[in-house]
Amino acid sequence: MKENERLLIEKFKTIKPVEKSYEEQAKRRWKTVAKPLFSLGKLEDAVIRMAGIRRKVDFEIRKKGLLIFCADNGVVSEGVTQTGQEVTAIVADNFTKCATSVCIMAETAGADLFPIDIGMVTDVPLVTDPKDKVMYGTKNMAMKPAMSREQAAQAVLIGIRKVKELAEQGYDLIATGEMGIGNTTTSSAVVSVLLDESVENVTGRGAGLSSEGLNRKICAIERAIEKHQPDKEDVLDVLSKVGGLDIAGMTGAFLGGAIYHIPVLIDGFISSAAALCAVRMVPETADYILASHCSGEPAGRMVLEELKLPYLIDANMSLGEGSGAVAAIPLLEMGVNVYRKMSTFEEIKVEQYEELK
Amino acid sequence: MKENERLLIEKFKTIKPVEKSYEEQAKRRWKTVAKPLFSLGKLEDAVIRMAGIRRKVDFEIRKKGLLIFCADNGVVSEGVTQTGQEVTAIVADNFTKCATSVCIMAETAGADLFPIDIGMVTDVPLVTDPKDKVMYGTKNMAMKPAMSREQAAQAVLIGIRKVKELAEQGYDLIATGEMGIGNTTTSSAVVSVLLDESVENVTGRGAGLSSEGLNRKICAIERAIEKHQPDKEDVLDVLSKVGGLDIAGMTGAFLGGAIYHIPVLIDGFISSAAALCAVRMVPETADYILASHCSGEPAGRMVLEELKLPYLIDANMSLGEGSGAVAAIPLLEMGVNVYRKMSTFEEIKVEQYEELK
Repeated sequence: MKENERLLIEKFKTIKPVEKSYEEQAKRRWKTVAKPLFSLGKLEDAVIRMAGIRRKVDFEIRKKGLLIFCADNGVVSEGVTQTGQEVTAIVADNFTKCATSVCIMAETAGADLFPIDIGMVTDVPLVTDPKDKVMYGTKNMAMKPAMSREQAAQAVLIGIRKVKELAEQGYDLIATGEMGIGNTTTSSAVVSVLLDESVENVTGRGAGLSSEGLNRKICAIERAIEKHQPDKEDVLDVLSKVGGLDIAGMTGAFLGGAIYHIPVLIDGFISSAAALCAVRMVPETADYILASHCSGEPAGRMVLEELKLPYLIDANMSLGEGSGAVAAIPLLEMGVNVYRKMSTFEEIKVEQYEELK
Repeated sequence: MKENERLLIEKFKTIKPVEKSYEEQAKRRWKTVAKPLFSLGKLEDAVIRMAGIRRKVDFEIRKKGLLIFCADNGVVSEGVTQTGQEVTAIVADNFTKCATSVCIMAETAGADLFPIDIGMVTDVPLVTDPKDKVMYGTKNMAMKPAMSREQAAQAVLIGIRKVKELAEQGYDLIATGEMGIGNTTTSSAVVSVLLDESVENVTGRGAGLSSEGLNRKICAIERAIEKHQPDKEDVLDVLSKVGGLDIAGMTGAFLGGAIYHIPVLIDGFISSAAALCAVRMVPETADYILASHCSGEPAGRMVLEELKLPYLIDANMSLGEGSGAVAAIPLLEMGVNVYRKMSTFEEIKVEQYEELK
């Protein structure tokens, strides 16, 4: 086993299940809050989950960060996308100028953006940092494995490190996002293998493919899987053969959440594919993940169901960049604020609601 | 016909369908925004709808207001709730002290609260204004009609006037909310009549009823409907016999949105019952309403489907007070901000996505 993989497996060992005692205390606290029991529904569940992750009953969301993993995918040369690889770098550059959709949405949510060039074909001065960059785009998976096993492990380690860095800077909540032309193709490939689903069932139109384009996309994925025979029991094998560097980086971000006890939000389909990879690597990671929205990409719902993660927003969004995760932040903050600041029944002199047996 | 009803019918005549030309212009503008087509899903639809309502392609959401109609319901004496009528006034008073759940959530959303005593049993100094108060709680509908036809019309007129007042103060978006112990009972009664659904199908546990309590609730509603035979073709008849003053006030708020060209947000089940009343009174009102979340109360989804209004949030919330409507405000703002501030394809020098045929 080579260096990166060995390091990664060391990291795996530090992941423990969430301590349920904090969740139990948070549940008890919700019951004293002066409002009908369970009436904030999934917002209450999310708060309970975050209390467990943070290992604190009384926690705050102070700083919110969005990690956006930017990478290119060689499979684009199969004609699986409407736009070319040059768009990845253009949008990555726009992240630094607040000139993308998610930048504008993050302003409303009060979240800070951290674009990471984990493998774009082109360097972008304000984004690219050699220590975060695994390679200049993956190979075309329809022909060759997208990357080596060590490169996949390296990308996952980078994702873990990014969460560590934000945790050290006092971030309490991390959203995941990505930018990479062709990354619904790689996501569908990964999900098809890990869920043992037909490629057709898990492949959608991405950023707006025609039916002809969709067929090319399905064929390219089928060829890649057929050719490399990724082993569904070995996530690094799957990531390296038919995945992408952005997916691998986000996989690391989810693992990082579990290692550093920070809740990490899934965005849409691509991000959920990474969450699935993280949970298949270390099942306990599931405790540290929160879903945000149900993607408009058809397999998004399927992956969230597999992960048993309830989503808050159902708005048929499919923009990526972390936009859905960022959209959920104000909702989570509302939940946490009611939990922390709201009077108890005792304080407002109203009798507590009885719990149904 | 008496004075209030006559005045109300005058108001009805001023409601026109939304002018589709503004919606068309907004659709065209979305296509130039540098992001995959339709990738903000229902947020895009909501922005298009708001452009039509505001009769402006380039509109902002500057001020957001939440109208909370507070009222008591005589049917509480049938044992249909877990708490007594005194709680309505306590919570209404707490709205003025930022000591309720929705106050805390509205802070995050940047919305201003306007509690209105449209018919509480108890006066609350900072809330009660004699010109907004129809009566001191409705009668027990299981015995007598909840109110007179004129009182129902008066409550609707008050709701319309409240929207007029906020429009004059520069509010661009109005959320509806309510506080009134027993108001899921009245809402289920109204919805059962208007949708011709069995009472059982549209009645839930409200703020946490036991199964025994639920049976009492269903029986009380069935008795009220059986006794007064409300005419489903005559919404004022339904509201006055088996409705509540809060529902009637919110009905007015939705009509007011259509009269004064302000988008009005549905909250949960009770609020959706009022939206249904407004649309049955004047079908064109439907164009001016936006849904926020899908209530945890079982018939909430049913009413939104009837109104053909897609919701953004699916979080199993059932708190009322306008909490779900307020939760949707940041999402709507994100949509509007991307629509207004985001670069066009031309500006960022990326080729526009092709539209699928």
